[in-house]
Amino acid sequence: MSGNRVVVYQGPGEVSVETIDYPKLELPDDVATGLGIKKAAPHAAILKLVATNICGSDQHMVRGRTTAPVGQTLGHEITGEVVELGDDVLFAKEGDICSVPFNIACGRCRMCDEGKTGICLNVNPARAGAAYGYVDMGGWIGGQAEYVMVPYADFNLLRFPDRDQALEKILDLTMLSDIFPTGYHGAYTAGVTTGSTVYVAGAGPVGLAAAHAAQLLGASVVVVGDMLPDRLAQARSFGCETVDLSQSGELADKLAEVLGEPEVDAAVDAVGFEARGHGQGADEAPATVLNDIMSVARAGASLGIPGLYVTGDPGGVDEHAKIGQVGVRLGLGWAKSHSFATGQCPVKQYNRKLMNLILNEKAQIAKAVNATTIPLDGAADGYREFDQGAAKKYVIDPHATIGG
Amino acid sequence: MSGNRVVVYQGPGEVSVETIDYPKLELPDDVATGLGIKKAAPHAAILKLVATNICGSDQHMVRGRTTAPVGQTLGHEITGEVVELGDDVLFAKEGDICSVPFNIACGRCRMCDEGKTGICLNVNPARAGAAYGYVDMGGWIGGQAEYVMVPYADFNLLRFPDRDQALEKILDLTMLSDIFPTGYHGAYTAGVTTGSTVYVAGAGPVGLAAAHAAQLLGASVVVVGDMLPDRLAQARSFGCETVDLSQSGELADKLAEVLGEPEVDAAVDAVGFEARGHGQGADEAPATVLNDIMSVARAGASLGIPGLYVTGDPGGVDEHAKIGQVGVRLGLGWAKSHSFATGQCPVKQYNRKLMNLILNEKAQIAKAVNATTIPLDGAADGYREFDQGAAKKYVIDPHATIGG
Amino acid sequence: MSGNRVVVYQGPGEVSVETIDYPKLELPDDVATGLGIKKAAPHAAILKLVATNICGSDQHMVRGRTTAPVGQTLGHEITGEVVELGDDVLFAKEGDICSVPFNIACGRCRMCDEGKTGICLNVNPARAGAAYGYVDMGGWIGGQAEYVMVPYADFNLLRFPDRDQALEKILDLTMLSDIFPTGYHGAYTAGVTTGSTVYVAGAGPVGLAAAHAAQLLGASVVVVGDMLPDRLAQARSFGCETVDLSQSGELADKLAEVLGEPEVDAAVDAVGFEARGHGQGADEAPATVLNDIMSVARAGASLGIPGLYVTGDPGGVDEHAKIGQVGVRLGLGWAKSHSFATGQCPVKQYNRKLMNLILNEKAQIAKAVNATTIPLDGAADGYREFDQGAAKKYVIDPHATIGG
Amino acid sequence: MSGNRVVVYQGPGEVSVETIDYPKLELPDDVATGLGIKKAAPHAAILKLVATNICGSDQHMVRGRTTAPVGQTLGHEITGEVVELGDDVLFAKEGDICSVPFNIACGRCRMCDEGKTGICLNVNPARAGAAYGYVDMGGWIGGQAEYVMVPYADFNLLRFPDRDQALEKILDLTMLSDIFPTGYHGAYTAGVTTGSTVYVAGAGPVGLAAAHAAQLLGASVVVVGDMLPDRLAQARSFGCETVDLSQSGELADKLAEVLGEPEVDAAVDAVGFEARGHGQGADEAPATVLNDIMSVARAGASLGIPGLYVTGDPGGVDEHAKIGQVGVRLGLGWAKSHSFATGQCPVKQYNRKLMNLILNEKAQIAKAVNATTIPLDGAADGYREFDQGAAKKYVIDPHATIGG
Repeated sequence: MSGNRVVVYQGPGEVSVETIDYPKLELPDDVATGLGIKKAAPHAAILKLVATNICGSDQHMVRGRTTAPVGQTLGHEITGEVVELGDDVLFAKEGDICSVPFNIACGRCRMCDEGKTGICLNVNPARAGAAYGYVDMGGWIGGQAEYVMVPYADFNLLRFPDRDQALEKILDLTMLSDIFPTGYHGAYTAGVTTGSTVYVAGAGPVGLAAAHAAQLLGASVVVVGDMLPDRLAQARSFGCETVDLSQSGELADKLAEVLGEPEVDAAVDAVGFEARGHGQGADEAPATVLNDIMSVARAGASLGIPGLYVTGDPGGVDEHAKIGQVGVRLGLGWAKSHSFATGQCPVKQYNRKLMNLILNEKAQIAKAVNATTIPLDGAADGYREFDQGAAKKYVIDPHATIGG
Repeated sequence: MSGNRVVVYQGPGEVSVETIDYPKLELPDDVATGLGIKKAAPHAAILKLVATNICGSDQHMVRGRTTAPVGQTLGHEITGEVVELGDDVLFAKEGDICSVPFNIACGRCRMCDEGKTGICLNVNPARAGAAYGYVDMGGWIGGQAEYVMVPYADFNLLRFPDRDQALEKILDLTMLSDIFPTGYHGAYTAGVTTGSTVYVAGAGPVGLAAAHAAQLLGASVVVVGDMLPDRLAQARSFGCETVDLSQSGELADKLAEVLGEPEVDAAVDAVGFEARGHGQGADEAPATVLNDIMSVARAGASLGIPGLYVTGDPGGVDEHAKIGQVGVRLGLGWAKSHSFATGQCPVKQYNRKLMNLILNEKAQIAKAVNATTIPLDGAADGYREFDQGAAKKYVIDPHATIGG
Repeated sequence: MSGNRVVVYQGPGEVSVETIDYPKLELPDDVATGLGIKKAAPHAAILKLVATNICGSDQHMVRGRTTAPVGQTLGHEITGEVVELGDDVLFAKEGDICSVPFNIACGRCRMCDEGKTGICLNVNPARAGAAYGYVDMGGWIGGQAEYVMVPYADFNLLRFPDRDQALEKILDLTMLSDIFPTGYHGAYTAGVTTGSTVYVAGAGPVGLAAAHAAQLLGASVVVVGDMLPDRLAQARSFGCETVDLSQSGELADKLAEVLGEPEVDAAVDAVGFEARGHGQGADEAPATVLNDIMSVARAGASLGIPGLYVTGDPGGVDEHAKIGQVGVRLGLGWAKSHSFATGQCPVKQYNRKLMNLILNEKAQIAKAVNATTIPLDGAADGYREFDQGAAKKYVIDPHATIGG
Repeated sequence: MSGNRVVVYQGPGEVSVETIDYPKLELPDDVATGLGIKKAAPHAAILKLVATNICGSDQHMVRGRTTAPVGQTLGHEITGEVVELGDDVLFAKEGDICSVPFNIACGRCRMCDEGKTGICLNVNPARAGAAYGYVDMGGWIGGQAEYVMVPYADFNLLRFPDRDQALEKILDLTMLSDIFPTGYHGAYTAGVTTGSTVYVAGAGPVGLAAAHAAQLLGASVVVVGDMLPDRLAQARSFGCETVDLSQSGELADKLAEVLGEPEVDAAVDAVGFEARGHGQGADEAPATVLNDIMSVARAGASLGIPGLYVTGDPGGVDEHAKIGQVGVRLGLGWAKSHSFATGQCPVKQYNRKLMNLILNEKAQIAKAVNATTIPLDGAADGYREFDQGAAKKYVIDPHATIGG
């Protein structure tokens, strides 16, 4: 227990696995100092990782599209076994297998009271909201690692009821830390309900999760758009319709071919700020996806926007993009009385419900996103392949628990 | 009954009162033809106007900031007496004094079923939603007039329970056709509730109505921002705090002086696409207000956007503005998990509730917006003074019912 | 077109098919007189029946458990083809195949504005709410008939988009007039959502529809309780778990065997006032089901109560029951912070959504309730078999349109 | 600090002040043992009482209408100063003046996650939900005392932002621990909103708080019913209308005299299980109030039921009442599509909002309920006078902090 191996950002396009100190039951210095609270964390637990996934938002850092410094530890999609408990952890027990919401939250502030755990006020002195292993998110150590410290453990941990069952379904359950709730949040805040027709922009893991969530919410038809054939095939593999954005033509016309009408009841932006224009070889055009979904969402629709938009993007295409300002066709949205839901998914609002579906075999999220297990030392390869558009969701298995 | 005098747009900065035909119980040609339905309208009623207000959105047309043609009839804030009924009007009666929601709606489509009367599917072949006397809104004759035809009268009319009481409170009740519900919609969709601190951007009539609505929704403090001293004084006259945007300094700092903290729980954009930058003589800068309210609304807030954003603005400051595309700091909003509510107020969702407050003397909207009666022939003066920033809401009294 | 054959109540246990006048475009006398409105109904349409189902609530009348007089026409689950239109029906067209919500509603009152079409204020002078062919519900002619008049047709009719497709899926679509929305309403108002465990009391058609609706709303497990083996087998046929209430033992224990815990997240009373106690040969005990579901619903749960409770029951077990007063363990419900949702399903809130599911083959309601077609002249047999507990939903096919 | 003086139940009609041990940072034995968690409570704080009120629900115990044993400590309406903190209390500080929700909650369970702090799963092994100083509520020591221990302090304590301001407004702020949120919960769950007409049954402190809350929620008229003239006068003192239930006549007729119609939009049962019939000298009749409010609430209304109904009442009027079963006219409620909201108020959902109103002088709850300060040794008198119907809310001031 003298060390902890963790994935670390080494500059644009590069990650490595480094050994750092074994975690302590302590807050990061910046958090304790910035908030004026004790560093000792009797509310915290240490988890031995069982599964920890690579996320599309990790890619923003690794591509150099954020201000993340070299040395930034990575990983916020965490599932693990409790191996150590602070004095004030009363309900989680050693040996529990738990999912950890990627949003770190205190359970003691006004935002947590309201269920808004994505913007907790007590975990990041710089702004509302924090996450493990992420730039500007409080300085918490990343969880693409052997071990990780989870603060406010009784609040943050979602305990699986049965250890054996959990390990058996681990490739599904590992998606509860981020991507499944995030996709669900996108579909839910887009107002998907019984009978809805739905368009999901983007067939990366979040888009696929949003598409599957839309099915679970009762959609009558789910259409997914992307430019990559493998990702579109992946979407079709679990019953979605698809539109190929690499082909010319208006999105509305493509939807009309599938649906018999050019509009949908609900739409999701599962792409975010690194959007590209349409057609082969299109350049980056930050608001393309958002403007697209406005154009095809029915009047009165809500738009779910789980895709990330950032406050600072050193690689932005122009001065506006560099400060997170994008050209939104707000006149169009206003004329259609659209509403727009943005921000990090508050994982705790959804993870228990989705766990119950998985444990009762009513959701197949691992299949939907094509979960693929790799060892911790395979992280660099996983990042690279994912960046190249592999239609896979990479699940790191640091202790060879999952196997295969 | 051979004619009907109505206010007509005559080109940028000019309106006049013209005589047109007395209204018939018929749909506009474009609506009947475009939808493939009968022109005869047994569902319609004709109203003799009691009060009809000049709206800030009329000003967009009169300033030449829309594609409205010369000859466009004006007026969508309508209160009148029923003087003629179609065969299928069963519940409204001759002699009833009624408020008419500015949104024309059929009561028979999916959107009306959902209460979304601002985007009715059966009143405008060009797009969802219609209004009286407005460009691109279905070709319905305006109601700054002596008489007006109201289709689907049993659905659209809000009948006042007592004629004498109605006339006595007419300056309050006339605000039910648009501005009071619109302001309320702004505050309501911004999530204003018991104890909220609220910032309303803009102290024109919609902003003042939003501010008063925020009080009625239980706000603990309402702060209104504008650049015009008279409008700020008007806001203070009914218990609001104010910030003067003509002075230099950050909005957050100004709010901190008032509230003790730089953020509010809820914020309303009551300005829209003709926003200006800050400080004396600032130029038009379309997204200024929206970006402002994002900067001061608490993480997790909803932003109410009753201020109009248009799909086409011939006078826009640049090519983007001309197509209704504005530079939104979406990265900031996303980081704060903001949601955004846009579009026309669905008046029917609120007008009955607000009527009940007025009739029981629990709301003083006429006082809040400084209702000022003028004759029909004074319309041109009213438009001019309002455009120059008068802190007044002009109520046209075509038959000298009010002022006499 | 000189007559109309319709099912008529002939006293306890007896119905017959009688010939009455062909429907007119007129309101019932009582409605017109009682509300002081015109009898002529230019808003109405006449439908030729395609399918019209026998409902459990018809049985209350036929068993003599209501004040229905001999001669009461029956039938409120109506699907038909438009064959005649009043002058103010603009959007429905001759030849349209439509579903008719069993609640008659005007689309012009405050309740309809709020979507509460089950308690429309303008269709029944005696109280809020009306239905076709039902005692105390306004005097509207029943629809277990060849033809039926539907008032406010543009508001009430749900038009199927394609005639051939409609006829092909008619056994599913016929459930949209009542039972599928009613079951959905029960599950929805019980708060069933993603991952819920659900208990549905009663495996008659409403209970089965509630169970299927719970699946569509994302339940992780649905358990249905009844005393009749055939109905329990029917529930299992589409993936529900069951508990046999004819066997001794506590309901909580029976649920624990299925679920591993004695409580559910959501519970539905699909039985109503003619409930019986538990075990073989149990007597009628009006609040048994309601008290049962309180005992097994988790603290904080909502209880959906689509099962009918009446204001007067001549056959009630005691004086209290005769006036609709039942012994509710309110102390238990209060201690668990339960909420209770009662009343007729407002069909229009759900029928379009459910139609979209059916048309896209995402719901199999005909299979769930075991839809069984019979001719109009087979109505008496259908009533009798249904009353004896047949695990079938009887669909009358008056014009041999469905066939087979 | 060797002892703690606390109000104790001494048998029907009697309370005394006894000295018990000074509180420790420990859970009650029953809680720790029953849940299998540590007794040590690093999450707890000790408060020196500033104000602690007598509640109507305390009277149920003192009247002998519960199973409370002699020796039961009393008091759950607690406002105090933090004087000692466990190691894991990070955000509350010594010297903070705080309001304590009467519901004890852990902030770490599924119910707390959903904001349902009235039915927390981790504070009472016997059932969901706990409170200080109450029978069957977990064995927590009462707070009509000098000192009290508050577990999960960071979650439970509502900190007032400024000590001096807090002490200045203490008679209003002391109502945040129970009665103001409870009244608000009643009005809120009854659906009171802008323009509502409201009937509140019962003018005791909860009824008066519900009435004031209804005003703050935007009611157009609030009518309060009771049999005691002083309480009715108290209701009129802050702008409510009243109906005198000691006089003969139907409630609907009395409301019609006030409102011009016999129905209200929203109704609240602020009486509960010890209800009496109508008229002078009426006997106890447990469901009278609930059936009353059903009779006058509009179709479609929600009924807010903050009045307590119990699972066991040794003094109940009959065998049904003794087990908390009451004769509810469910048929009537069902015909009107009523919904019913029961249970303890989850104080944390409302106390911060209401605090903001008080601190900004937008709510006058102390005036509405006629707050009256008494010393700790005056508790027995306070209980007696309150039981006799005094139109006062008694605030115990154990350290002479207020009254001085």
